[in-house]
Amino acid sequence: VSTNKKTIILFSDDFDKAMAAFLIANGAAAMGDEVTIFFTFWGIDLIRKPSKVKTKGKTLLQKMFGMMMPRGPGKLGLSKMNFGGIGVRLMKVCMRHVNAMSMEDLVATAREQGVKFVACTLSMDILGFKKEELLDGIDFMGVAGYLAEADEANVNLFI
Amino acid sequence: VSTNKKTIILFSDDFDKAMAAFLIANGAAAMGDEVTIFFTFWGIDLIRKPSKVKTKGKTLLQKMFGMMMPRGPGKLGLSKMNFGGIGVRLMKVCMRHVNAMSMEDLVATAREQGVKFVACTLSMDILGFKKEELLDGIDFMGVAGYLAEADEANVNLFI
Amino acid sequence: VSTNKKTIILFSDDFDKAMAAFLIANGAAAMGDEVTIFFTFWGIDLIRKPSKVKTKGKTLLQKMFGMMMPRGPGKLGLSKMNFGGIGVRLMKVCMRHVNAMSMEDLVATAREQGVKFVACTLSMDILGFKKEELLDGIDFMGVAGYLAEADEANVNLFI
Repeated sequence: VSTNKKTIILFSDDFDKAMAAFLIANGAAAMGDEVTIFFTFWGIDLIRKPSKVKTKGKTLLQKMFGMMMPRGPGKLGLSKMNFGGIGVRLMKVCMRHVNAMSMEDLVATAREQGVKFVACTLSMDILGFKKEELLDGIDFMGVAGYLAEADEANVNLFI
Repeated sequence: VSTNKKTIILFSDDFDKAMAAFLIANGAAAMGDEVTIFFTFWGIDLIRKPSKVKTKGKTLLQKMFGMMMPRGPGKLGLSKMNFGGIGVRLMKVCMRHVNAMSMEDLVATAREQGVKFVACTLSMDILGFKKEELLDGIDFMGVAGYLAEADEANVNLFI
Repeated sequence: VSTNKKTIILFSDDFDKAMAAFLIANGAAAMGDEVTIFFTFWGIDLIRKPSKVKTKGKTLLQKMFGMMMPRGPGKLGLSKMNFGGIGVRLMKVCMRHVNAMSMEDLVATAREQGVKFVACTLSMDILGFKKEELLDGIDFMGVAGYLAEADEANVNLFI
């Protein structure tokens, strides 16, 4: 266990929770820490490509989940007071007002800073996501991979 | 602090979050780690017996909470897109399609692998749950018990 | 990393989640641990003064968020089964029945026990909260401050 490694399981695709996750990840990376984010379940939405990718072998239900789940950081909603998408729009206005980074920029910055992006393979299997639908250059791991990383880190959050 | 012990506070009774908790717990146990899950607040639902147990000394309100809260891993809903129970049913279809373990099997496997199940006594007091309503052979602890375990672990998650 | 320091990021302003956070914080403080709670995003609501404070320089949207977000620990709702505030009232009845501490007392006790309260400055900027609207005597930090504290702690939770 060293103090220069952090892991975050990003389970949620709520705009506000994802923002918290990326702010912590980017802050730690800026301070020289190794950071790994495990995108699991709804969190997979953060690493979806923004436009539809043709895939084979999905069941009808998997297609349906895929259609209903947001594609990428630009489509997320707030965990509270979202009001069908109005809340998140107003929140984005508030963020621009103080020159806070957008969700898209937070994700891009994380990649630039070398934060390791890992997609949970079981979530992908269940929800039917294919590698080509997700950001290029990410890693793919199951729970054993997560635990191996967490054992080397001193801060492990579930968001 | 050793790298072979993990604790998870399972606060939520959402199907998807509980699934994440048990996958991590079972994965860690399979790798030889000691794992303790603290079932607190809504999380208590995961360790309720599936059928009604006659109890004494509950207030009307506690009976009401008990009736409205799901009994056991088979009755949970999704944290998002549940649509009155339709969402979780469709998710279960997706899980069976890829031969993922059911929630009931995840709980059973955790017990078989020796994951320590602890019910939060304050949550039980507040919500009126009696020991005989919960799974047999589990432990009962307050926050001091949790902290003692967390101090020995290297990964401590709140789900 | 020592076993006598804990940090909690309180992101949520749900009554039940905040209760869990303060019970853990107070329990750890009672056992002699140093505890820091980072109030971020909705969690800021926990440290708002209960009555309106006149402020300058808020945008209309920030005023709106401020009006809609609960002021202090007495105004929170449950994360589930809240039913427009009925759920949390009934939960409070259940808590009084077993002499559990109220949310207000949990916060007060945390302060008395020396739990360090830190408001996330970025959340304050975005949502427009001013220092004079929050409890007196708290600290203000960004993500770097959080990470510095987390690196010294052995249990770091995100709630």
